[in-house]
Amino acid sequence: MTVHAYGAHAGDQPLEPMQITRRAPGLHDIRIEIAYCGICHSDLHQVRAEWAGTRFPCVPGHEIVGRVAEVGAHVTAFAAGDLVGVGCIVGSCRHCEDCDSGLENYCDGMVGTYNFPTPDAPGWTLGGYSQQIVVDERYVLRIRHPEAQLAAVAPLLCAGITTYSPLRHWQAGPGRKVGVVGIGGLGHMGLKLAHAMGAHVVAFTTSESKRAEAHALGADDVVVSRDVDAMAAHARSFDLILNTVAAPHDLDAFLALLRRDGAMVLVGAPATPHPSPNVFNLITRRRTLAGSMVGGIPETQEMLDFCAEHGIVADIELIRADGINAAYERMLKGDVRYRFVIDNATLAA
Amino acid sequence: MTVHAYGAHAGDQPLEPMQITRRAPGLHDIRIEIAYCGICHSDLHQVRAEWAGTRFPCVPGHEIVGRVAEVGAHVTAFAAGDLVGVGCIVGSCRHCEDCDSGLENYCDGMVGTYNFPTPDAPGWTLGGYSQQIVVDERYVLRIRHPEAQLAAVAPLLCAGITTYSPLRHWQAGPGRKVGVVGIGGLGHMGLKLAHAMGAHVVAFTTSESKRAEAHALGADDVVVSRDVDAMAAHARSFDLILNTVAAPHDLDAFLALLRRDGAMVLVGAPATPHPSPNVFNLITRRRTLAGSMVGGIPETQEMLDFCAEHGIVADIELIRADGINAAYERMLKGDVRYRFVIDNATLAA
Ligand SMILES: [Zn+2]
Ligand SMILES: [Zn+2]
Ligand SMILES: [Zn+2]
Ligand SMILES: [Zn+2]
Repeated sequence: MTVHAYGAHAGDQPLEPMQITRRAPGLHDIRIEIAYCGICHSDLHQVRAEWAGTRFPCVPGHEIVGRVAEVGAHVTAFAAGDLVGVGCIVGSCRHCEDCDSGLENYCDGMVGTYNFPTPDAPGWTLGGYSQQIVVDERYVLRIRHPEAQLAAVAPLLCAGITTYSPLRHWQAGPGRKVGVVGIGGLGHMGLKLAHAMGAHVVAFTTSESKRAEAHALGADDVVVSRDVDAMAAHARSFDLILNTVAAPHDLDAFLALLRRDGAMVLVGAPATPHPSPNVFNLITRRRTLAGSMVGGIPETQEMLDFCAEHGIVADIELIRADGINAAYERMLKGDVRYRFVIDNATLAA
Repeated sequence: MTVHAYGAHAGDQPLEPMQITRRAPGLHDIRIEIAYCGICHSDLHQVRAEWAGTRFPCVPGHEIVGRVAEVGAHVTAFAAGDLVGVGCIVGSCRHCEDCDSGLENYCDGMVGTYNFPTPDAPGWTLGGYSQQIVVDERYVLRIRHPEAQLAAVAPLLCAGITTYSPLRHWQAGPGRKVGVVGIGGLGHMGLKLAHAMGAHVVAFTTSESKRAEAHALGADDVVVSRDVDAMAAHARSFDLILNTVAAPHDLDAFLALLRRDGAMVLVGAPATPHPSPNVFNLITRRRTLAGSMVGGIPETQEMLDFCAEHGIVADIELIRADGINAAYERMLKGDVRYRFVIDNATLAA
């Protein structure tokens, strides 16, 4: 089946309309009519070949929501018309310890939603900037939000789970003080989720202008990280700091805010290294510096259900497919509140 | 009371005999006749003023073992003649969350065994390179080893607890694969302890010549860390890596050996920073880079009892007090198997 998509033929070329093929659904497959697809920073890095190994043509997109159009003969959990989502993962080995633990995101054989090898043409996966996608039922999520919120649900599939998973793993909740560094696509979800989990939430931003917004997103306190006194007032008080900033920056300023046994979890990888963290900051309070990468399928479903229950969606700006290149330029300037989402109906135009 | 000691009057001068005073024991104090004191790398860094804030005269030493000579009127747990030890801690605030948890080592008010402010003359604590020491009973440990092993018990008070605490905290034990990086004063204890805890233990060394020794110390496997293929054979397999190397080195080579949710714990702080660790190595397996600093009083007692039960002591080289300066030079060359211990009886000479 041939469908309209938006992608790039080379790293130095803009994205443009293209046609791609999708496989006929197998016994366990679900064919999804994509309604909306969020735009993640990873999309930009991959399609511009800023990360190694980009295969062209490249169609990004791993914040996919839509409706089931057709199911394979053995699919029983989903039916045509269901609201569903697909995130960063469309395959995995299914028999390793990670897969057995529902942590397909850490499986060696994980197949990402775009740019990963697949038997399908053209030989690598093509993502959600397209009209349709065919995905094995194991990697399809159910969406229980009202349909009117569907566009704003899309970013939950990457930005949502990327922040939800470490917040859960490091036990954000009542009685815990949680920091969120950076108020962008990831950080704004981190604030909403940590607040809904019942933690005392502190937002860290470099910009005084984001103070009111951060409070509105769920922050109990807002600290401008350049304000040395404001930072010092929080010394040794955090159980967890979720650091969403990928740009290289001074980790020590935040590590010093952790209490004994506290953890700072990085969810963004910088293109060039952060300044090397001071080992004394780790040793003197038995602190942890850790990383976390999206989340597994069961946890992604848990996150979607949690968000549906708490009325949580992303704050988005809906765009047409022909606005993707312009949206990328605005993302690079941090000029988005807080996630661009493509209206995939505009791909047909 | 005036006692003989060995210390330095300035950072650029050798240690030499000196006389110091010890307070009369208070109601809760224990006066200890020091039999042996281990030599820790911290001693050297502090007394040579390589670390900031050294107060002179400086008498180092925090691996202290000996006999109770006298107890204060309110001391009931110890009596004259008991074998006891004193480690890195001789005081703390006693009412914070850390103290309440028996983690005095992380208390803001921790008083180190040397170079920390005290009401006693000369105004800062003086350590175990001395004939006697007076310590509050809260910070005195009981030694249940045979007296014949007393000299070799001394290094347990710092090198032992520094490795025991993270091994316990990160759950070394049966079914867990534990690496120990560096086979020196700390590392040789890490190997013995992790082995006794029942873990599968792998020693990492830069020196092929230490292979047989590492096996003898408890390593199931020995990997020469410069051997890229040998390292690769252990990729993504460790639950815990205890890194005892303070010299700046490539942390990524070891982080890549951790399995999902594995932790590398640093117990040494480099004088200049390690190369900045690659964040991808943390993110892609939810790995942890952490630090740990000695251990609290209850855990130090637990460690001593564990070692007594398992017949564990340090491998030592006993020296006279007038050999301390020469021992420092050999330590700097890594020429010690594996800890120098001072025979404090030689201080009287
Ligand atoms: Zn993403
Ligand atoms: Zn797998
Ligand atoms: Zn020490
Ligand atoms: Zn305290």
